[in-house]
Amino acid sequence: MSIKVVLTEDEIPRQWYNLAADLPSPMQPPLGPDGNPVSPDMLAPVFPMNLIEQEVSQERWIDIPEEVLELLYRWRPSPLHRAYALEKALGTPAKIYYKNESVSPAGSHKPNTAIPQAWYNKEFGIERLTTETGAGQWGSALAFAGALVGLEVKVYMVRISFDQKPFRKVMMETWGGKCVPSPSNETQAGRDILAKMPDTPGSLGIAISEAVEAAVTDPTGKTRYALGSVLNHVMLHQTIIGLETKKQLEKIGEKKVDTVIACAGGGSNFAGLAFPFVHDKINGAQIDIIPVEPSSCPTMTRAPFVYDFGDTAQMTPLLPMYSLGHNFIPPPIHAGGLRYHGMAPLVSAAIRENLITPRAIHQLECYQAAILFARTEGIIVAPETSHAVAGAIQEAKKAKEEGKEKVIVFGLSGHGLMDLLGYEKYFAGELHDYALPEEELKKSLDDSLQGLPKPAGV
Amino acid sequence: MSIKVVLTEDEIPRQWYNLAADLPSPMQPPLGPDGNPVSPDMLAPVFPMNLIEQEVSQERWIDIPEEVLELLYRWRPSPLHRAYALEKALGTPAKIYYKNESVSPAGSHKPNTAIPQAWYNKEFGIERLTTETGAGQWGSALAFAGALVGLEVKVYMVRISFDQKPFRKVMMETWGGKCVPSPSNETQAGRDILAKMPDTPGSLGIAISEAVEAAVTDPTGKTRYALGSVLNHVMLHQTIIGLETKKQLEKIGEKKVDTVIACAGGGSNFAGLAFPFVHDKINGAQIDIIPVEPSSCPTMTRAPFVYDFGDTAQMTPLLPMYSLGHNFIPPPIHAGGLRYHGMAPLVSAAIRENLITPRAIHQLECYQAAILFARTEGIIVAPETSHAVAGAIQEAKKAKEEGKEKVIVFGLSGHGLMDLLGYEKYFAGELHDYALPEEELKKSLDDSLQGLPKPAGV
Repeated sequence: MSIKVVLTEDEIPRQWYNLAADLPSPMQPPLGPDGNPVSPDMLAPVFPMNLIEQEVSQERWIDIPEEVLELLYRWRPSPLHRAYALEKALGTPAKIYYKNESVSPAGSHKPNTAIPQAWYNKEFGIERLTTETGAGQWGSALAFAGALVGLEVKVYMVRISFDQKPFRKVMMETWGGKCVPSPSNETQAGRDILAKMPDTPGSLGIAISEAVEAAVTDPTGKTRYALGSVLNHVMLHQTIIGLETKKQLEKIGEKKVDTVIACAGGGSNFAGLAFPFVHDKINGAQIDIIPVEPSSCPTMTRAPFVYDFGDTAQMTPLLPMYSLGHNFIPPPIHAGGLRYHGMAPLVSAAIRENLITPRAIHQLECYQAAILFARTEGIIVAPETSHAVAGAIQEAKKAKEEGKEKVIVFGLSGHGLMDLLGYEKYFAGELHDYALPEEELKKSLDDSLQGLPKPAGV
Repeated sequence: MSIKVVLTEDEIPRQWYNLAADLPSPMQPPLGPDGNPVSPDMLAPVFPMNLIEQEVSQERWIDIPEEVLELLYRWRPSPLHRAYALEKALGTPAKIYYKNESVSPAGSHKPNTAIPQAWYNKEFGIERLTTETGAGQWGSALAFAGALVGLEVKVYMVRISFDQKPFRKVMMETWGGKCVPSPSNETQAGRDILAKMPDTPGSLGIAISEAVEAAVTDPTGKTRYALGSVLNHVMLHQTIIGLETKKQLEKIGEKKVDTVIACAGGGSNFAGLAFPFVHDKINGAQIDIIPVEPSSCPTMTRAPFVYDFGDTAQMTPLLPMYSLGHNFIPPPIHAGGLRYHGMAPLVSAAIRENLITPRAIHQLECYQAAILFARTEGIIVAPETSHAVAGAIQEAKKAKEEGKEKVIVFGLSGHGLMDLLGYEKYFAGELHDYALPEEELKKSLDDSLQGLPKPAGV
C-alpha cells in the first residue's frame, strides 16, 4: 500500500540548496541600465537586505530559520505519490512518481517562497509588500503568507487572468490582501501601457513594473516588492520540494531516478524540484532533467540567451537569461503562470551548461494529459501543471516503446480547482494550439533587445 | 513544532465504528408508505445489497476492505492541527484542534464515503450511480470516486448552487461525471416540481427525488442511487475521521477532550468526527458534543422528532428524524450543504438520547469566524465548515470567560476555494441573517407531516 510516501516532522529538510554554488561556470551578474553590474545596495529600495544577501550568496547550503520551518510545517512535508493508476492506463513499464504541492492552503508550491519572503521582510522591519501575479497562484500565496506573518499585501494581477478568474481576488481579500487588475491606473507604468494599448490582456512583465514602482515610490520606505519566481532567492526557497523528494525516494529504497520533469514559467517550480537533482548530475549522476513550457510562449526552446529586462517598463536590472523580449505579450492561454517572456537566470544557466533539456508542449496535449491524470490519479491539476503531466506521459510512453523500466519523477505544482474555466473551454472545443510565428518572435526580439549589452560567450 | 499531528500508513484505522450498536435505545425502523417497516429487500432497487447490509447492521466494528483503504490512503490519514494562531488571536486558554478534511482531492470529507460506496456498488456488479448534490461537494466526491473505481456517475445538483457555482459541473466532468441542475426535465419528479414552481431554487429534497427516480427506473437494472449523507452506512464510513482524530490526540498525549464540534447538514460530517467520541461518552466520558446548523435551516434546534420522507417527492422510506418537513425549501444561503430539511436518523437518535447538544448559528457570525480563521490559520474554509469554526470560537471565548484550559476539537470538513462567491457577497455587505419565522415552520410541518405515522415515545 505504498502509493504515498510521507516524511515525519523530523525528516523535513532544514537547509535550502543553492545551485549557484555548484555551477561549472559562474553566473553573469545582473546589469544596470548603464551596463555596469548591479550592486546589492542598488537593490535595497526593492528588496530587504537579508533577501539580497541570499540573492547573491555563493553558499551551497543555507539554513531555513526555525520560525519559517514552523510555518512551512503547517502543510509540509508534502506527499510523494506513486502514480500506479496512471502507469496502468498507459501500460508503461516506467514507474511514475509525483511530488504533490497542491496540498498547501493556497493550492500550489508558491507558499514555499512566499512564507520566507514575508518572514525576512518582517524581520527587516518592512510593513507592506507589493507583487504581481499571473494565474493568481503567486498573489494568493503572498496574501496567505502576509496573513500568517503579519504584513499588508498588494497584488497587481494580469488583467486576462483577473477577468478569467474573478475569485482569485476574493481569495486574496479573504487573507486580507488587496488585488487590482494590471495594467492599472495606479502607477505610471500602468497608465503608460493603458494609453498605448487600452485593451491589452496585460502580462507578467507589465504587472512586475507596476508592483516595483508601487514599492519604490512609497515615501514611508516601509514597502518592498516580492517576486514569485525568476530570482535566485526564490529558486533557493523552492528547493525544499526536491530535497524532500530525494528523502522520500530514499525512504522507499528508490536509488536511481532517470527523469525529472516540471513545468517552467519563471522557473521557480521547476528549480524547486529539479535543482537538488541537478546537484547530483553535476556530481556524476545520469539524469534527464526536463523543464516543460507552452509552445505558445517558448522561452527556453526558441528564444536566445541575452541580457534583458525582467519587466516591460524596464524597471528591473538586466538579467542574463533566455528571453522572448521584454515587450513580448504571450497569447492568453489558460496556463497564466507560464505566460512570461523570460526565464530565471539560474535555470537559464543550467540550460547553457547542458544540465537540463527544455521541451515545449502544445496546450491541447496538456489538457488531454490533465484529464487522463484526473481520471486515474484523482487530482485535477492546474493548467500550468498539466505541462509537467504531459511531459511525464511522453516519457512514460517512450519508456514503453523502449521497454525500459525508467523511474520518472514529476512536479505536481498545484491543483486546478480555481482554474476550471480552461477545462470548461477544453470540453467545449474552444481551445486551440498556437505556435508562435517566427516573424513575431523576431519582431519582439528586435523591439526589445536593441542597444542592450550581450552576455559574455554569446 | 507540533502544530500538526500526522499518522503513518500503519496507523490508519482499519475498521469503521457503528454507533447503532451502542445506542441506549434501539433505533426505530424506516417505514414504508403503508406504515410498516421497510425490509432490506424493499431497498434493493435503490442500493446494492452489500450496502443495505451495512445500513441495518448492529455490529459495532466493521472492517474496511483493503482495496477501499488503498484508495482512501491516497490522501488519508488527514492531518490534525493545533490552532495556535487562532488561540492567540482569541486570547483563550483553550487548546483548539481541527481535523483537516480539506486535503482530499475533492476538497472535503465527502470522498470518505464516496469511495466505499462506489467500491461496494462495483463489487455488486453495478455500472452507474445517480446522486444529488447541494453545494456540490458530494457530487464532486462521487464523480471523483467513480473515476477511481470505474463507474459512471450522474449528478442532480440543486439549481441555486448550480447557478452560484458553475465550476462544480466542470469539476465533475473532468472526473468523467455528468451534472444537471435540479429540478430538471429529465425525471417525473423534476417535471412535476417545475410545473408548480418554475422559478424554484431547488432543494436537496427535490434533487434526491430525481436521483432516486433515475436509478430505479433504469431498465437495465445496473444503476443504483448513492446518498452523500443521512443514512446509517454513510455515517459509518465517515467515522474514519473521528477514529483518526482520537489516535492523533493519543499520539501527542492529549488525554481528555472537553468539546467536539462539527457542522451538520444531513449529518455525515458531524457523525464522522463525533460518533467515536459519542462512544466514549456512552462509556462514561464527559464531553460536550455539538453539531452546528444554520439558524435559517434549524432542523435540530427547532424542528420536531417525527417520521418524515427524506425527499420532497416522497420516494424514500419514512425516516425517524428531526425534520422541518419534506416540503420545506431552505433559504438560499451559501452553505448549500446545510440546506436540508431533515437530519440523519443516527444523529437524531443521539440528540434524543441527550448524547449531543445541537446549536444554531447565524450566517454573518459564521463568515466572520471563517475570515478570522483564514487570517490566523491560513485555510479558507467552506461556508458549511464556517459553522464549526464559529461554534469553536464561541466555546473558546466561553473558556476564556470561565478561565478554563479546555480542549476543543472541531471538524474542518472542507476548503472554500470553490465557494468564494459567498465570501465575495459577505465583503460586499450583501449577506444578511435570516431567522425562520415560526408561522413558516408551522406551515411546512402541517403541509408535510399530515397523516404520517409518529415515532414511538413522541
